[in-house]
Amino acid sequence: MQVKSDKITETVIIVAGGKGERMQTDIPKQFIELKSRPVLMHTIDVFIQYNHQIDVIVVLPETQIEYWRKLCKKYAFETHHQVTSGGSVRFESVKNGLIMAKNYGLIAVHDGVRPLVSVTTIAACFREAKQSGAAIPVIEPVESIRQLEGNENLAVDRNKFRLVQTPQVFDARILKKAYQQDFSPLFTDDASVVEASGVKISLVEGNRENIKITTPFDLKLAETML
Amino acid sequence: MQVKSDKITETVIIVAGGKGERMQTDIPKQFIELKSRPVLMHTIDVFIQYNHQIDVIVVLPETQIEYWRKLCKKYAFETHHQVTSGGSVRFESVKNGLIMAKNYGLIAVHDGVRPLVSVTTIAACFREAKQSGAAIPVIEPVESIRQLEGNENLAVDRNKFRLVQTPQVFDARILKKAYQQDFSPLFTDDASVVEASGVKISLVEGNRENIKITTPFDLKLAETML
Repeated sequence: MQVKSDKITETVIIVAGGKGERMQTDIPKQFIELKSRPVLMHTIDVFIQYNHQIDVIVVLPETQIEYWRKLCKKYAFETHHQVTSGGSVRFESVKNGLIMAKNYGLIAVHDGVRPLVSVTTIAACFREAKQSGAAIPVIEPVESIRQLEGNENLAVDRNKFRLVQTPQVFDARILKKAYQQDFSPLFTDDASVVEASGVKISLVEGNRENIKITTPFDLKLAETML
Repeated sequence: MQVKSDKITETVIIVAGGKGERMQTDIPKQFIELKSRPVLMHTIDVFIQYNHQIDVIVVLPETQIEYWRKLCKKYAFETHHQVTSGGSVRFESVKNGLIMAKNYGLIAVHDGVRPLVSVTTIAACFREAKQSGAAIPVIEPVESIRQLEGNENLAVDRNKFRLVQTPQVFDARILKKAYQQDFSPLFTDDASVVEASGVKISLVEGNRENIKITTPFDLKLAETML
C-alpha cells in the first residue's frame, strides 16, 4: 500500500487551441463529439484514469472558455480541472498554463486532441521523467523519410528518426525555467523548448494509436479506436 | 477524345511480401479480409480504376502463390494480372517483378498493403514521372521529429522532412538501370535505389489515408476508411 504523502505531485497541462479550420467545421476540434462526448473530455479522463489525484489544467482560447463550461454542464462532466486562456501560439498557451501549475513535482504537457493516449504511455513518461527530469513518448516511423534541402530532397536513414507524441513530462522546475526563454519558431513542442534550455530529453515508447486529431480522417480513426 | 495509341504504357509492380508476424495471425497481411475481400484485391483494383489498361505484376513469396490463386477463385477475382515470386528482401522482390515488366513506358512500384491509395495520388505520380522520370508521393509529418545520434537525440525542423508513400513511379529505363546496382541496407524504397543511381526524385502530394497496413491497429483504420 502506497502512502499518499510518498507520491510525487503530478500535474497535466492540456493544451487545446484548435479553431476548427482544418476540420471543415465551425466547431473547434477539441469540442467535436467522439462516441457522444467532446474529444477534450475523453483526453482529460485518460489522465484521471492514470492518477485520479492529478492536477488538471486546461488551456483554451479565451473565446471558448464560456462554451466549454456550458459543454461541461450539458454532458454532466464533473471531473475537477482548472481552466485558463491560451495565447496566439502554443508556446504562449503552455506558458499561461504553467502560471497555474505548482512549482514542484512533475508536469506533463499534452495535446487536447490526443484522446487515444494510453495509460501505459502516460505512466512510462512520468516514470522516466522522475528519473531523468524530461521524458517524451516517441514511435518509429513506418514510412521512408526524405529531407528537403532547398530545391533538392534526399533519402535519409529512417532508423535515425523518431516521431514525437505527447504527454511530454518534466520536472516542474526544469519546465518553468525553460519557458522563461524567448519564443523561437523551432519550438514545435515542449521537448524542443526544454532542450534549448540545455536539458537532455529521454525517449520512451509511445502508443501508435495516440494520434493527433487534426482532420476529419483522424476523427474517423479515433471513432474506430475508442 | 484520347486515342489509345497516344497513351504511354503503364505498369504497376505490386509487392506483397508480408508473412503475418506483426499481425498476430498466421495469415499474411496482404491476404487478410478487409470489407469481405483480401487486402491485395482492393490494392489491385485501385490501379485498375485509375487505368483499366495498366499492366499489373504482383510479387508474392513463392510459398504463397498457390494460395493466392485459390483466393482469386474463391472470391471470383478476375482482374488480369501476372504473378511472380519475391526474394528475401524487398529489393530482390522488385527486381524479380521488373523482369516481367516492359522495357518502355512508366513503371510504378506499390506496396500490396496500401489499399487506401487514391486514384488522384496514382495519377499525380504518373503525371509527374512522365515529365521528370521519377516521382513519389509524400506527406508532411504532423508530429515533431527527433533525430538519434548515438545515445543522444535532438529536435529537428519538421518542415524539412517528408514521409514517403507509394506508388513510386519511374521511367522504365531509369528503374531497370537502378535495380542493376548492388543491394544496400539503406534501400528502404525504390526512390532510394533510383537516387543512388544518380537520378533526382520529384515529390508529389500523397493522400494521408494511404497508410501501410502492418498491425491490427492499421487494419481497423483501413476498415473504417473503406
